[in-house]
Amino acid sequence: MRYKLVVSYDGSCFHGFQRQNNYLSVQEKLEKTLEEILKTPVVIKAASRTDAGVHAYGQVCHFDSPQLVPEKNLKKILNKKLFPSIYIKDVQHVDNTFHARINALKKEYHYFVNIGEFDPTRAKYIHYFHNRIDIEKMKEAMRYICGTHDFKSFSKNHTIKTTVRTIEKFELIQDGDMLEFVIIGNGFMYNMVRIIIALMLKVAEGKFEPIHIKEIIDGCDRHLAPFVAPACGLYLWKVYYESDLVNHETK
Amino acid sequence: MRYKLVVSYDGSCFHGFQRQNNYLSVQEKLEKTLEEILKTPVVIKAASRTDAGVHAYGQVCHFDSPQLVPEKNLKKILNKKLFPSIYIKDVQHVDNTFHARINALKKEYHYFVNIGEFDPTRAKYIHYFHNRIDIEKMKEAMRYICGTHDFKSFSKNHTIKTTVRTIEKFELIQDGDMLEFVIIGNGFMYNMVRIIIALMLKVAEGKFEPIHIKEIIDGCDRHLAPFVAPACGLYLWKVYYESDLVNHETK
Repeated sequence: MRYKLVVSYDGSCFHGFQRQNNYLSVQEKLEKTLEEILKTPVVIKAASRTDAGVHAYGQVCHFDSPQLVPEKNLKKILNKKLFPSIYIKDVQHVDNTFHARINALKKEYHYFVNIGEFDPTRAKYIHYFHNRIDIEKMKEAMRYICGTHDFKSFSKNHTIKTTVRTIEKFELIQDGDMLEFVIIGNGFMYNMVRIIIALMLKVAEGKFEPIHIKEIIDGCDRHLAPFVAPACGLYLWKVYYESDLVNHETK
Repeated sequence: MRYKLVVSYDGSCFHGFQRQNNYLSVQEKLEKTLEEILKTPVVIKAASRTDAGVHAYGQVCHFDSPQLVPEKNLKKILNKKLFPSIYIKDVQHVDNTFHARINALKKEYHYFVNIGEFDPTRAKYIHYFHNRIDIEKMKEAMRYICGTHDFKSFSKNHTIKTTVRTIEKFELIQDGDMLEFVIIGNGFMYNMVRIIIALMLKVAEGKFEPIHIKEIIDGCDRHLAPFVAPACGLYLWKVYYESDLVNHETK
């Protein structure tokens, strides 16, 4: 019996999604809780290995269970045990061909930046950026990110097969002093979203001209963009699968 | 030299405002930090002793310093040392007649309730209320709170001189699934705002009729309202002084 979970969590409570020694991860918490409920070891596979401090509103995982549990019951009991740092938004019985990571067609991340007065209640949830910024210049730079490019300059990992990715959407929503970046792509390498945001903020504060973003992409060299925006502002928002796209089109 | 501070803080990081043994309070953190800067013991007086878990965007404190420090410098160095759980919004040199608690004319609190899907990233910052609620009935109940009443039913403390308070404003702002209560009064007793909110939610979920709120007030008995809403939703928003009212009127 394979189950698909849609999960939200407070990343500030965990040292990232992936299991590791000595530090509590979302994966460990989920696996141990499922093991308690199902009385058998459980292995969780997730769409994305979010870093320490990164939040999620729509992480997707799957796991196999030897027994059938009604979806509604499983959601209820999981949420009771996971409260308050993790919340299961949805539990769905899926067939064995579903794989949370391999079947993911695209991912949506949001990144929040506060350019106003510092708010201590949001310190772990929004990146506070206190320099003056030029929104129009930044928007110009954002356009260079969109499309299909070799994002080698945005990747620390030299062992992966290809660094070509397609960014289908990169938008900025401004609500007063709050900036919300929305980025959707067919895949993101380790730290890639945070590197992109860090570069956008460099342009915003006048340290880079927008055209320099194109030069960084074309240069295909990680040393051209050695910046990473803080984890706290980043949220894994949604993972898209074939079924989401079909549902969306027929709606 | 007397200084007035306007302070915001993340209440989830402290066991309330007031100093206590074995637990970190906002007062202790502020006093120790000021002592480090001014090289002399400092006593902080605050407008309101917020409880453990209660947040502030506009707490007001005062303290005396043997030396004159430029306001801007003091703000900068304090914020560097207090980051990220406390933020000093304003430092002002005031004359010796100013007292943060005694001179406070009225206080404004906001209380946030999430009536939608649970959000783990806001668990410590918004009260999550998962029952169905009737907003119109609740608004009817809110009207009974406004005005000057003996709020004895809303006070645990039997030693205080008078339990009469005036609530000049009690409003509800609804933004989707987020409820924001705004309450302004000339004074609030220990837990009074949280007791009021708990009662409003009792009406909202249909456990009390709105008229019962009037009966609770008229009954002048704490046992009639033995409820307290969670601390996490509460924010000390603003403390009003003579100078605020004058400034406001002349603006």
